[in-house]
Amino acid sequence: MYKLLKTDGLAKRGEFTTVHGTIQSPVFMNVGTVAAIKGAVSTEDLKTLGCQVQLSNTYHLHVRPGDDVIRQLGGLHEFMVWDRPILTDSGGFQVFSLAKLRRIKEEGVHFSSHIDGKKIFMGPEESMQIQSNLASTIAMAFDECPPHPATRDYMQDSVDRTTRWLERCKDELDRLNGLEDTINQKQMLFGINQGGTYKDIRIEHAKTISKMDLDGYAIGGLAVGESHSDMYDTLDAVVPHLPQNKPTYLMGVGTPSNLLEAVDRGVDFFDCVYPSRNGRHGHLYTHTGKLNLLNAKFQLDSRPIEEGCTCPTCTHYSRAYIRHLLKAKEMLGLRLAVMHNLHFYNKLMEEIRVAIDAGRYKDFKGEMLESMKD
Amino acid sequence: MYKLLKTDGLAKRGEFTTVHGTIQSPVFMNVGTVAAIKGAVSTEDLKTLGCQVQLSNTYHLHVRPGDDVIRQLGGLHEFMVWDRPILTDSGGFQVFSLAKLRRIKEEGVHFSSHIDGKKIFMGPEESMQIQSNLASTIAMAFDECPPHPATRDYMQDSVDRTTRWLERCKDELDRLNGLEDTINQKQMLFGINQGGTYKDIRIEHAKTISKMDLDGYAIGGLAVGESHSDMYDTLDAVVPHLPQNKPTYLMGVGTPSNLLEAVDRGVDFFDCVYPSRNGRHGHLYTHTGKLNLLNAKFQLDSRPIEEGCTCPTCTHYSRAYIRHLLKAKEMLGLRLAVMHNLHFYNKLMEEIRVAIDAGRYKDFKGEMLESMKD
Repeated sequence: MYKLLKTDGLAKRGEFTTVHGTIQSPVFMNVGTVAAIKGAVSTEDLKTLGCQVQLSNTYHLHVRPGDDVIRQLGGLHEFMVWDRPILTDSGGFQVFSLAKLRRIKEEGVHFSSHIDGKKIFMGPEESMQIQSNLASTIAMAFDECPPHPATRDYMQDSVDRTTRWLERCKDELDRLNGLEDTINQKQMLFGINQGGTYKDIRIEHAKTISKMDLDGYAIGGLAVGESHSDMYDTLDAVVPHLPQNKPTYLMGVGTPSNLLEAVDRGVDFFDCVYPSRNGRHGHLYTHTGKLNLLNAKFQLDSRPIEEGCTCPTCTHYSRAYIRHLLKAKEMLGLRLAVMHNLHFYNKLMEEIRVAIDAGRYKDFKGEMLESMKD
Repeated sequence: MYKLLKTDGLAKRGEFTTVHGTIQSPVFMNVGTVAAIKGAVSTEDLKTLGCQVQLSNTYHLHVRPGDDVIRQLGGLHEFMVWDRPILTDSGGFQVFSLAKLRRIKEEGVHFSSHIDGKKIFMGPEESMQIQSNLASTIAMAFDECPPHPATRDYMQDSVDRTTRWLERCKDELDRLNGLEDTINQKQMLFGINQGGTYKDIRIEHAKTISKMDLDGYAIGGLAVGESHSDMYDTLDAVVPHLPQNKPTYLMGVGTPSNLLEAVDRGVDFFDCVYPSRNGRHGHLYTHTGKLNLLNAKFQLDSRPIEEGCTCPTCTHYSRAYIRHLLKAKEMLGLRLAVMHNLHFYNKLMEEIRVAIDAGRYKDFKGEMLESMKD
């Protein structure tokens, strides 16, 4: 159940109630691909880092350890020991980006596992069954993530198929939620808007899926190679055609400035691997720009990554120490860096919420973009 | 300052006071080679794991980031944020096991860095200067760790040189501790007994170095390929010739049963990479034996690694989850496994202390060896 608490321009401040607790939006969902955050960050740590929602990958968990295993262990919440909301993606993105020997048919996709080459079939029903086994809070619809660039004809066919798949997802999840032995019988479904940068296809698709009264709406297929201004133009065009009184989720995006710009266009759910990936490469976020800790100038720097930061890394360890660990390829360095970056992203969303609450989002956005130069 | 609180047979229960706090012995020192415990375990974590003493490697830190860097940052305690005792090894073991193109002379050892091949010279004075820069609580004397097996002649020459080096170490550390800008002017020095499995050489050497009134005495050059019974025989022979009213430190040893046997022979300081290394390979210690978590039988096992264990891993996560993380090569799996094993080792030492206090060490040892089958 989504409650729109306040708007500031197009920026939305929402409260989304689920069986696993309430999410304050705008929100950044922390990515735990295989039921763990890369960088040795545990679900215990996630609470310290201010994470509200954890995201796991359906395809990865289906391949290993298997959604049947996780189901027998009581579902993802029990498995990874996390009592707050979990969103699972549909597996679609990974099928189209990782899997090999892919054949797309009306019924779904035949492909080979990226781990052992085993033949797998996944369609809307299979994706829902897997996500029902995982028992996440929010299931994502199984869609085709079209290549970029794609011809107009390919895109239109793909989006039409995605719409038909969405209807099948909805029917199948309704059926699964009605079964007695389903772990989470209140699993929610988010649909995914596609259409690349063809604005008219996007808008038409948004209108179609908006009629289906889903629990939330995602915008997929962006940040796949198009420019930032194309991404923002697409958001400008499509977001007004998605329900304002539902979560609006921009998938796989992005940098802090992407988040700031997207919030300003009405998006309020995000996920991205940048904070953990950049952390692992020694790129640390601060409110005054990104630091490359591998730079020699930090060798004797006894300051925390960011002065005043309350994350577990900054409250104890220095730039010099973390730099040393990263140079020596010590796992602890990766952990400390990733923890700081995840805290930064979660904190940024909190600051965004405060700014919207105060009715000064445009000013806040301007100040942040100016200060971060990112 | 070492206070012998109690003996139970040869087993010693001691209290060792340093400028960085008091150590209760028998004690296991947790190995943080490059100023970090492998497995993404921080000094904050070490406190939770019951670690009393952290051990770092002089050679590694000299090569990277450089002891001069650590000195400028206030010493190892400041650098890695650890306010309890730190023992640094002398670099000798690494020079003889890792470094390339080694030439041993009376003044010291010429060798090439294992990282960039850079030529380095290290002798007793250099080792003390580096350790003084690191400002550890306890410095280890620079010794030759002779190859195993070594001829009797080689061993005798090597041990004689190690004695001469020890005298130079003592003089140099006395000088450094007297300098005004030395960070830890109360740095302690432990000597190292050598002699391989030649008991008469060991005993003669032990008698010689015991006269030097050092802060503690280590037994080096064991667990280098000899059998366990040879190790125990050597301890039986040499420990009675080392001062009982000083720490007795068996370097680089070993399995839980090695520790139990060595304590029974009068040893009360230990360090070893086994708990972290075994953890990283999925081998988890329990009081009823070691588990190989990669084994398929743990796939659906929702129990903690050890029932009743109070470590941060066992209080939250299941065998099935940790197994999945290890199989997926997720860093979090390594971290959770290493944390459990370090907690097990620190806890085992606590149990050993309790048993000595109660005057039932022999019984305790028997029960543990029977139960652990290790």
